[in-house]
Amino acid sequence: MFSEERSAEVVTASFAGTRDERLREIMGALVEHLHAFIKEVELTEAEWAAAIDFLTRTGQKSDANRQEFILLSDVLGASMLVETINHRAGGGSTESTVLGPFHMVASPRRELGDDVALDGKGTPCLVSGQVTGVGGEPVPGASVDIWQANEDGFYDVQQPDIQPALNLRGLFTTDADGRFWFRSVVPKYYPIPVDGPAGQLLEATGRHPYRPAHLHFIVSAPGYRTVTTHVFVADSPYLDSDAVFGVKESLIREAPTVDDPARAAELGLANPFRTLTFDVVLQR
Amino acid sequence: MFSEERSAEVVTASFAGTRDERLREIMGALVEHLHAFIKEVELTEAEWAAAIDFLTRTGQKSDANRQEFILLSDVLGASMLVETINHRAGGGSTESTVLGPFHMVASPRRELGDDVALDGKGTPCLVSGQVTGVGGEPVPGASVDIWQANEDGFYDVQQPDIQPALNLRGLFTTDADGRFWFRSVVPKYYPIPVDGPAGQLLEATGRHPYRPAHLHFIVSAPGYRTVTTHVFVADSPYLDSDAVFGVKESLIREAPTVDDPARAAELGLANPFRTLTFDVVLQR
Repeated sequence: MFSEERSAEVVTASFAGTRDERLREIMGALVEHLHAFIKEVELTEAEWAAAIDFLTRTGQKSDANRQEFILLSDVLGASMLVETINHRAGGGSTESTVLGPFHMVASPRRELGDDVALDGKGTPCLVSGQVTGVGGEPVPGASVDIWQANEDGFYDVQQPDIQPALNLRGLFTTDADGRFWFRSVVPKYYPIPVDGPAGQLLEATGRHPYRPAHLHFIVSAPGYRTVTTHVFVADSPYLDSDAVFGVKESLIREAPTVDDPARAAELGLANPFRTLTFDVVLQR
Repeated sequence: MFSEERSAEVVTASFAGTRDERLREIMGALVEHLHAFIKEVELTEAEWAAAIDFLTRTGQKSDANRQEFILLSDVLGASMLVETINHRAGGGSTESTVLGPFHMVASPRRELGDDVALDGKGTPCLVSGQVTGVGGEPVPGASVDIWQANEDGFYDVQQPDIQPALNLRGLFTTDADGRFWFRSVVPKYYPIPVDGPAGQLLEATGRHPYRPAHLHFIVSAPGYRTVTTHVFVADSPYLDSDAVFGVKESLIREAPTVDDPARAAELGLANPFRTLTFDVVLQR
């Protein structure tokens, strides 16, 4: 029977008849940790009621265009932990990071060298790299799906009246040497949405809502493990305090300025421009 | 920076600037246990997504008349653990149990001996007891607030078209000897609502949704700690498997049948009737 001492044991026992073995394992561990948490902090009834209210509002803030529980998972580092556990890099392969909520439209197919900045706004940037296997072999024909925020820190879907549809998105295919390159603009840091419970949590705990400047990648090729990741711009603020804990050292790159009118003209970029180089290493 | 090994440490550090010391303590413990849980079960991305969906639906099932997150907390034993931690009985005082979601209307004032079964339906039952302090002193003038389900297992608020308003509720005051008594009917076991995510969890884990038969009490008196509790009927099914873990051994009472036409007539009850005696001991 239930008692303070035996609470987790009693509740876990109630799940003994769960047919799905994995669900039984998960519920047992959940109960153990939930009860240990409540006991450790000796949660008061008022705090419990506040938690119930917070979680209820988090569910109710969510709709077709907003997922507040993912945002809560993000700011608690849970999303990043799940991502990391499920995509352990190895043998020098590129580390993964969170997908984020803005990959909600399919990226349009683009040719190598295309400019994904459809409105031409922002500091021009040449993004390039090579996709290889961990053995160093180039991966031709790899799919490189990219998307990013503009120079104001917004994705196209956040500004349907300001940015052209599919702005700063592209789906590229690597060449015979596994290389990709395209024109874009330098992404900017931006705040996650703060008008819901996750934002209230950040406010109450003195945390800022910003993510450092980054460009999203999903790179895939037959026979290799797909990697979902970002490249972070080295001079961005918030690299040490990403609101969703997505930064890994290995994913930060400098974006040096190039002042070379001839090269700029050749690439079809304004001079001076910046460059961001990100090689991607895939596991078999 | 974030890594699988340092995840909880990094996220906890992000809460270091929390001004409210208690909130900082709670968030630190929450993150420790949440990350330990994810690591222990190596939660997959599909399982994480299922959890996000489950929690979102739990919030969205809640409205003015339904609180699905409380129900989830109940079936995970979290409500009972919080209740138990915050109301540790001592010195022989009566143990507490969950308030439950049906104390949503104020109980009407009743005179000792009144019949709270306004529709006269069910097996008649004389409920009585004495309120004392842990030293054994009677507590006259104590407030005894009671509510219960009817013989079909429903509270009045669940059957507004079938039961009279305020059926099976009463607010009594103990007499000079600390005694209370009233007429009612024997309560019945009943299922918690199963048409939401909490019910789906019970279904998926092979758990039944029933609570054993009980009568709710809130007993209070100046100078004493208020106790929120139930008395459970000893011959009810589900005493060993209450869906919300509310049963404590010390709260179970027999409800013997009395076949005594003279006594029944004196009390104003049909013969035979049952009796339920529950003495309540309050802490100073």
